[in-house]
Amino acid sequence: MERLGSKLVRMLDATEKSRYSRHILLDEVGELGQQKLKNTRVLVIGCGGLGCPALQYLAAAGVGHLGIIDDDRVDFSNLQRQILFTENHVGMLKVEAAKEALHRLNSRITIKIYPTRLSADNALELLNDYDIIVEGSDSFSTKYLANDAAVLSGKPLVFGSIFKFEGQVSVFNFRNGPTYRCLYPEPVNETEMPTCSEVGMLGILPGIIGMFQANEVLKIALELGNVLSGKLLIYNSLEASQMLLPFSKNETIKIRKLVEFDFSCTASTVEEISYAAYAEAKTDYFLVDVREQEERELFNIGGIHIPLQKLVADPDLLAEQERILIYCASGKRSASVIRELKKRFPQKIMCSLKGGTASVVNKDF
Amino acid sequence: MERLGSKLVRMLDATEKSRYSRHILLDEVGELGQQKLKNTRVLVIGCGGLGCPALQYLAAAGVGHLGIIDDDRVDFSNLQRQILFTENHVGMLKVEAAKEALHRLNSRITIKIYPTRLSADNALELLNDYDIIVEGSDSFSTKYLANDAAVLSGKPLVFGSIFKFEGQVSVFNFRNGPTYRCLYPEPVNETEMPTCSEVGMLGILPGIIGMFQANEVLKIALELGNVLSGKLLIYNSLEASQMLLPFSKNETIKIRKLVEFDFSCTASTVEEISYAAYAEAKTDYFLVDVREQEERELFNIGGIHIPLQKLVADPDLLAEQERILIYCASGKRSASVIRELKKRFPQKIMCSLKGGTASVVNKDF
Repeated sequence: MERLGSKLVRMLDATEKSRYSRHILLDEVGELGQQKLKNTRVLVIGCGGLGCPALQYLAAAGVGHLGIIDDDRVDFSNLQRQILFTENHVGMLKVEAAKEALHRLNSRITIKIYPTRLSADNALELLNDYDIIVEGSDSFSTKYLANDAAVLSGKPLVFGSIFKFEGQVSVFNFRNGPTYRCLYPEPVNETEMPTCSEVGMLGILPGIIGMFQANEVLKIALELGNVLSGKLLIYNSLEASQMLLPFSKNETIKIRKLVEFDFSCTASTVEEISYAAYAEAKTDYFLVDVREQEERELFNIGGIHIPLQKLVADPDLLAEQERILIYCASGKRSASVIRELKKRFPQKIMCSLKGGTASVVNKDF
Repeated sequence: MERLGSKLVRMLDATEKSRYSRHILLDEVGELGQQKLKNTRVLVIGCGGLGCPALQYLAAAGVGHLGIIDDDRVDFSNLQRQILFTENHVGMLKVEAAKEALHRLNSRITIKIYPTRLSADNALELLNDYDIIVEGSDSFSTKYLANDAAVLSGKPLVFGSIFKFEGQVSVFNFRNGPTYRCLYPEPVNETEMPTCSEVGMLGILPGIIGMFQANEVLKIALELGNVLSGKLLIYNSLEASQMLLPFSKNETIKIRKLVEFDFSCTASTVEEISYAAYAEAKTDYFLVDVREQEERELFNIGGIHIPLQKLVADPDLLAEQERILIYCASGKRSASVIRELKKRFPQKIMCSLKGGTASVVNKDF
């Protein structure tokens, strides 16, 4: 029935009129608005802290077709904020668990799942099938890729991001408006940035930001209110305050083709060793944990503990060692600290634990 | 184990440390903060559009003990925004459906349910067992009752309310701070106010406001950031904008005992007839639907259609009739229009349909 381009409009039946009566009663929505939602196709990139609440309210609101792309599995530590998942879902593919939860909420919508990562190869084809794109990943390279693919496909992108107690929301490429690159032309090297699994966050913050994103989706689909185009909303959960920062289109930026940012190639290469390989040859390496005290107390694989800042400030703490294996939560901080140490000790053998402690916890090594 | 007053502190076990690791990693929370959440007791008044998202994120965050009070059952039209409920829950008591959903999310917390309404008789005893109160009802009389009970019990009350595209949040009686009555000393007559079932709303708005309430609960429990005490947050979902209005304590207001506002007594009495009684004696009454066009199209029980505004502007439209039965969605607007018409036609017999069309839809007459 549903086909884009020459889109067939699907009408509401009596059950739907009753289910969505609170929307239909609004002069600003009405039966026609609810029909628009039914005929809207939304792709959500990332089914985590932002994607879960956005998907939940979009499904409840009667958005007729949802697509979800994510290659990750549900982890126990996700349950604190990724509210589509229950304890029974741990270990399942996130997209499958989400589809089950969303269909329990609303059996009348269609849901298509993609258990993969957004890439330069699949992005344009994926986006082509949708009207509105929601970006909820935790990766800068995915955010740029999604932005550029949205621009090339001419689709609006509802952007969200969080860090500790602060979140950001904006709508990029809305009716040819400003994009992510008008705010930040080039990505920062994300190997230098801590991730949420490293610094932590209150579970409710991504909930609020994901809901703000869902709200923008409804406004775009219903042609209601002022869409956050050319405005960056910055929300602070500790103050319950927000700012709206205006920004303009940078006409000098032209996106011609999709590029994936592989930060590990742009930075000098760091040798990685998996936990399995390390476990075989344990005695060969001097093991160093560069995470914070709280992280170490939660889980560690032994070795001595020198937090990153301390080690960077005083590399000579490792002057005596010749073969060193450094680990953090994901492998990012350990690689970055090795790049620093190489300047002081170019001759030493220094490796980073591939996938960090997460690979050990998830038995993925 | 858990007992207020001489509260026993429950520690975290290894599973909990892993589950809440993203909280524990935050310097501002840590293991001690997560223990505080585990030992916090939150009562949520009203398990609807505000209560559902607040409860969902409080359970996910590991708040150890939740109480839920609501006497209503899950209706099909609730699913558009009350996201704890699935299609299978329709007809169940909301508190029972919510408890089931929350335990699926987090089996390690305790949940106590009260399938009743907050009243002057039960309020103080109920509140006594909790540390923080969340007010998420859609009734002004419940909001005043909850406020007054919170003041008398010395507990903070996290207030939320919504109307169409706008929501309000504040924290009353926080460390003896300003209360609802410092903002609005006396309730308005709620029979004159349209309810959400009459004017409609976008499902996502109560979602955002309920999450703002949950955020304030976490801030109070963790002693983090600036609590919204003496500040009224007004959020507009069409603009994605918000204001923080400061307000001060009115020292002249003293609350000595709990009073329930029974608006049906303060307003002049309007005779009501149930749908069952009407159905028996159908021909006796001239039936008038005073709802809006959209409401009538969704469901009606016949009769002629004269929207409220039109009828109030021109009461003579009913000059010819002697026995009139007026209906709306809930019985509130029909009663209010009859009070107006009585001024023009004091001799006519005019009745209001008890419970409105909702009573017919729910077969509750």
